[in-house]
Amino acid sequence: MKKKILVINPVATSEWNESDAEYLRKAASSDTLVELVNIERGPTTIESFYDENFAIPAILEVVKENKNSFDGIMINCFADPGINGAKEICNIPVTGPGESSMLMATLLGNKFSVVSVKKNVVPMFEIKARAIGLTKKLASIEYINISVSELERDRTKTVNEVVKSIEKAVKEKCAEVIILGCTGMLSLYTEVVRRVNVPVIEPAATALKTLEMLIDLRLNHSKIGLYTYPVFDKIKGY
Amino acid sequence: MKKKILVINPVATSEWNESDAEYLRKAASSDTLVELVNIERGPTTIESFYDENFAIPAILEVVKENKNSFDGIMINCFADPGINGAKEICNIPVTGPGESSMLMATLLGNKFSVVSVKKNVVPMFEIKARAIGLTKKLASIEYINISVSELERDRTKTVNEVVKSIEKAVKEKCAEVIILGCTGMLSLYTEVVRRVNVPVIEPAATALKTLEMLIDLRLNHSKIGLYTYPVFDKIKGY
Amino acid sequence: MKKKILVINPVATSEWNESDAEYLRKAASSDTLVELVNIERGPTTIESFYDENFAIPAILEVVKENKNSFDGIMINCFADPGINGAKEICNIPVTGPGESSMLMATLLGNKFSVVSVKKNVVPMFEIKARAIGLTKKLASIEYINISVSELERDRTKTVNEVVKSIEKAVKEKCAEVIILGCTGMLSLYTEVVRRVNVPVIEPAATALKTLEMLIDLRLNHSKIGLYTYPVFDKIKGY
Amino acid sequence: MKKKILVINPVATSEWNESDAEYLRKAASSDTLVELVNIERGPTTIESFYDENFAIPAILEVVKENKNSFDGIMINCFADPGINGAKEICNIPVTGPGESSMLMATLLGNKFSVVSVKKNVVPMFEIKARAIGLTKKLASIEYINISVSELERDRTKTVNEVVKSIEKAVKEKCAEVIILGCTGMLSLYTEVVRRVNVPVIEPAATALKTLEMLIDLRLNHSKIGLYTYPVFDKIKGY
Amino acid sequence: MKKKILVINPVATSEWNESDAEYLRKAASSDTLVELVNIERGPTTIESFYDENFAIPAILEVVKENKNSFDGIMINCFADPGINGAKEICNIPVTGPGESSMLMATLLGNKFSVVSVKKNVVPMFEIKARAIGLTKKLASIEYINISVSELERDRTKTVNEVVKSIEKAVKEKCAEVIILGCTGMLSLYTEVVRRVNVPVIEPAATALKTLEMLIDLRLNHSKIGLYTYPVFDKIKGY
Amino acid sequence: MKKKILVINPVATSEWNESDAEYLRKAASSDTLVELVNIERGPTTIESFYDENFAIPAILEVVKENKNSFDGIMINCFADPGINGAKEICNIPVTGPGESSMLMATLLGNKFSVVSVKKNVVPMFEIKARAIGLTKKLASIEYINISVSELERDRTKTVNEVVKSIEKAVKEKCAEVIILGCTGMLSLYTEVVRRVNVPVIEPAATALKTLEMLIDLRLNHSKIGLYTYPVFDKIKGY
Repeated sequence: MKKKILVINPVATSEWNESDAEYLRKAASSDTLVELVNIERGPTTIESFYDENFAIPAILEVVKENKNSFDGIMINCFADPGINGAKEICNIPVTGPGESSMLMATLLGNKFSVVSVKKNVVPMFEIKARAIGLTKKLASIEYINISVSELERDRTKTVNEVVKSIEKAVKEKCAEVIILGCTGMLSLYTEVVRRVNVPVIEPAATALKTLEMLIDLRLNHSKIGLYTYPVFDKIKGY
Repeated sequence: MKKKILVINPVATSEWNESDAEYLRKAASSDTLVELVNIERGPTTIESFYDENFAIPAILEVVKENKNSFDGIMINCFADPGINGAKEICNIPVTGPGESSMLMATLLGNKFSVVSVKKNVVPMFEIKARAIGLTKKLASIEYINISVSELERDRTKTVNEVVKSIEKAVKEKCAEVIILGCTGMLSLYTEVVRRVNVPVIEPAATALKTLEMLIDLRLNHSKIGLYTYPVFDKIKGY
Repeated sequence: MKKKILVINPVATSEWNESDAEYLRKAASSDTLVELVNIERGPTTIESFYDENFAIPAILEVVKENKNSFDGIMINCFADPGINGAKEICNIPVTGPGESSMLMATLLGNKFSVVSVKKNVVPMFEIKARAIGLTKKLASIEYINISVSELERDRTKTVNEVVKSIEKAVKEKCAEVIILGCTGMLSLYTEVVRRVNVPVIEPAATALKTLEMLIDLRLNHSKIGLYTYPVFDKIKGY
Repeated sequence: MKKKILVINPVATSEWNESDAEYLRKAASSDTLVELVNIERGPTTIESFYDENFAIPAILEVVKENKNSFDGIMINCFADPGINGAKEICNIPVTGPGESSMLMATLLGNKFSVVSVKKNVVPMFEIKARAIGLTKKLASIEYINISVSELERDRTKTVNEVVKSIEKAVKEKCAEVIILGCTGMLSLYTEVVRRVNVPVIEPAATALKTLEMLIDLRLNHSKIGLYTYPVFDKIKGY
Repeated sequence: MKKKILVINPVATSEWNESDAEYLRKAASSDTLVELVNIERGPTTIESFYDENFAIPAILEVVKENKNSFDGIMINCFADPGINGAKEICNIPVTGPGESSMLMATLLGNKFSVVSVKKNVVPMFEIKARAIGLTKKLASIEYINISVSELERDRTKTVNEVVKSIEKAVKEKCAEVIILGCTGMLSLYTEVVRRVNVPVIEPAATALKTLEMLIDLRLNHSKIGLYTYPVFDKIKGY
Repeated sequence: MKKKILVINPVATSEWNESDAEYLRKAASSDTLVELVNIERGPTTIESFYDENFAIPAILEVVKENKNSFDGIMINCFADPGINGAKEICNIPVTGPGESSMLMATLLGNKFSVVSVKKNVVPMFEIKARAIGLTKKLASIEYINISVSELERDRTKTVNEVVKSIEKAVKEKCAEVIILGCTGMLSLYTEVVRRVNVPVIEPAATALKTLEMLIDLRLNHSKIGLYTYPVFDKIKGY
């Protein structure tokens, strides 16, 4: 089944457009067309509630403009910014790396850990797992203390820190499965996988494949409860 | 202790400014100065994730501008829009009616119900209670099927529907305490209280008094974890 | 990516082999080869722990024989019989309709209900959801009181009972998403979907697509914890 | 609004009456009148179920005698001894330091720890948090291994031990907020606050301010469920 | 193994001594010696926190006096009044009907309901189940609206109400097992059992048999945590 | 009351029959007759899902053949293999060491740890505790890294490892009560008990005494829900 998918990079920079599009097209099925856009207004990386909050209006505007031209939409950031609002305004499936990868992880072992960037995202993602209802399966959130924009500066160091966090999660927190908790880590994925003996989930590809699956199964989110259509004409000044 | 409090009505209308300010000044301590502003850009009422998402950037801008001139900030909407982002950027206490009233309700009985406006807020507030960690104390979320802008149209009908929902929650869901799950219901509070024999919490006043308490106790939210300061200069286009 | 998948019908009858294989091949990607076998020894349908227990040894024997010739294995019964043992002995992904569909359902709405066959499976599937860690997302398990072997006897009646259960789950239990809790219901799927306005998940197709996704993402379950290889030569008499 | 508050020191000693009253009067609003009494019969400190059990009858007798002369009652011990019985016999609000401070802590960060006296209170307060429904927000209970009556013996040592416990909770248990889990620690509060960089809650003042808030909001606990009036004339020998 | 057991009727009346002793001796093993005493000071029945609170000091005094002369102690009331304090002061096992029967019920089916006396005990026993950690297994608490002292007034009516509550729990709450939530109902047990087709647990006999089991297994509660010995000489006026 | 109990050693070896029978007869009441059999087909020890799966059909066959000749059945392995299926086909009580000992442990302290054999059983027993609903009471699962068949090889080493694990659980995980998580450890029980100062539960004896209790109380599991009779004549090839 032919599928046309829009990937939204929820950052106000086109820096990662090309490499992300290339990566995701490789991950996609042969009958999937992947288009990728970034937002115009908002943060250059998403690492706080503050960043998310300023990214979301632009994300939703992209969703509104494109929801009739695509079969599904993926928001390309582990924090899944704007996913609830996007599901409200859409009647096509919307996925995000955070929720897709955490659900997939539960199939692969008793407990999973997320390895992410800075300390403040530890409670942030813990709350996210709790909201999905997955606290029993979460071993821990680990952080490498390197911010998104610094991930590529010293790749060897970054990979080392990720591997160290994985080893800690496995040894001390009984994690059996690891999620890279930042889509900015996707370029390090192959190296990390090579160095550890547990399954490691790259969440951007997982969100894309989950979206393909929903489209193939003709499944959309429910419009009778949490994701009821909002009233559109109440917004002033945007 | 003198306290200067900023109340933000997170809606792009000044319609409720006067009545809300009057109501909250009556609720405030004698040594509290209450200032109330609405936002310029955003929705006219908040009844969906979509509404919230378009209200938050303007809320955070108000917070940023005023955080050095006040002792505390209250966001005047049961959904507590932007409260996490606001806490990130502030080092003065920030409260919202949703979390303040749900916590207070746990002191007053075994289980509480929230009575709110439309059906879609039922799962929305359920998720909110779960995020706070209060699922064991939540009896139910009830809705009266009247939207925020219609609450005042036929006051008698609205009050009747609220009372009916309360009776249902008490009888069928074992609720012992009720929260009015919309700050737009505050003008109906006295009538509702008169007609039922369970404690009813008006959340706007509760958020204000909770804020006064935090200021008096010189307590601020923690800045070492969930509410770490964000990096401010990454936002483009705002 | 070419994928060779083995589907095991965990029942000692070839009755559904042809129709199930046809259905699943339609659901599969164009580059997936689906092979389907039933077991030789065990129950003719699975509706109790007793049935499961007598199906599993034969399932595991099929898995052992075929694990080097396929890219993934799917066990085609909502109860996911033998899935833990199968994951222990395999280093290729194994999926089942129960866990795959319950996880997918969490993406589509706040809460889901499962509609299944007889009363005794209600607690059985509740325990299953709890083991996965999904109790917060489960609205209810409903049953139509028609056993697996009777599902096709009076199709109109069966569809009516399924629809009635869905309406009950939506109205009384706040379900937003429905899962057909028996892979024997797959022939009724199209009719059921037509008659309700909530997403309905057919779990066999979902397990197949989930398996394809895991293979495409080169993800296998973790072998360091719950699914460590067992010692193989301790079994006598099989 | 003028408020007349009775504070009950649930110990059979007047040792802390003067200093506690002074401390609480400072914390109180200008329109609050604080009266403080101790009990005549019972333990001299509360550090076990046994102590609590022998304190409660005398607490309830004080409550019964005074419930018509005050606007609210506070039981001044972190274990909140007798608070359920007191709420049953009262129709004025009753607060305790334990439940007030744990609820307040949830507003100030993702997770809180309680620092208390001896090892046996660790599970005791864990059960308390679970009964309130707050397990998701509790990072840990720490203890300094100094009993209540020894707290003031070597103040420097006590403060050092408290600070050490706080650092442990922050570093190893992800606590973002700290509660001093014994009202006997209130004299050390200022010194502790000065030495750590997380919010520290002094629970006695918090219970007092929470009580003022309930009185100001004219909120009382529900009398239709958990706190229904008991039958009074069934008690013999007291 | 010979066992000497003390049963404490935690009520200030000898009214049920003879019949309870007879009933429990019948339930006991042939090598068990059952002695039964009531308390001198306290309530005549236990139906509220208030009642419990005034019963406990006398219970603990009985425990202290007798702990060296018996092999185990049973507190004969479904609310298990004073059981924590009793375990603190004892190094012989102590059981109560509430916790013993709720644990036993989990062995007999997926979920259990408790049928008790008045409405206020519904949240009280819910909290009890939560404290033990058994919320997942609790279907509901039902009440017959007949107080303890009225249970025997019209036996036919009481039995009818209990049976009606059981049928409701089974039909509407998915209960598979029933506990009579008041030891005062033990004289009705045989009649109730005859009229329903689910297992019904009589908690007093269950607490006695659980105590015998602990004694036979030479198991006592742990003295290193929750039930550490208290300091005895701090109590004044008792 | 005379009781005739069948103990099933769910392993295809008679190696432990004599010593286990002797041990359990010593633990039994004087009026209990204990008969012990092993299974003919299946694993020689149970240490994985795979082992369990191949043991269960033979266990259920023993149960079916003997259910009319005994008053109760005990399955003598901590994993409780086949206990659900056995309860389905029986109308006499069936117990297992795992569930019996975990429930008993909750009476003896705030939290318990299980000390078992190899690493893979850690998540396996965690899931078991979660299925029973006891996660709040579980401190940890520890393992000694010695497989069942090696337990007796170097008794001193095994005991040392068990004691070390107990000390770790007590010190680092706040365990107050210990369960030996393998019935193969029963011969070491006396030595372990002597060396630690916390209650240690030997689960095989506990399952036997629990079974005696259920028989004495004439309690059987519910046949209306989870343990409804299965349809017997659907199994082919056994």
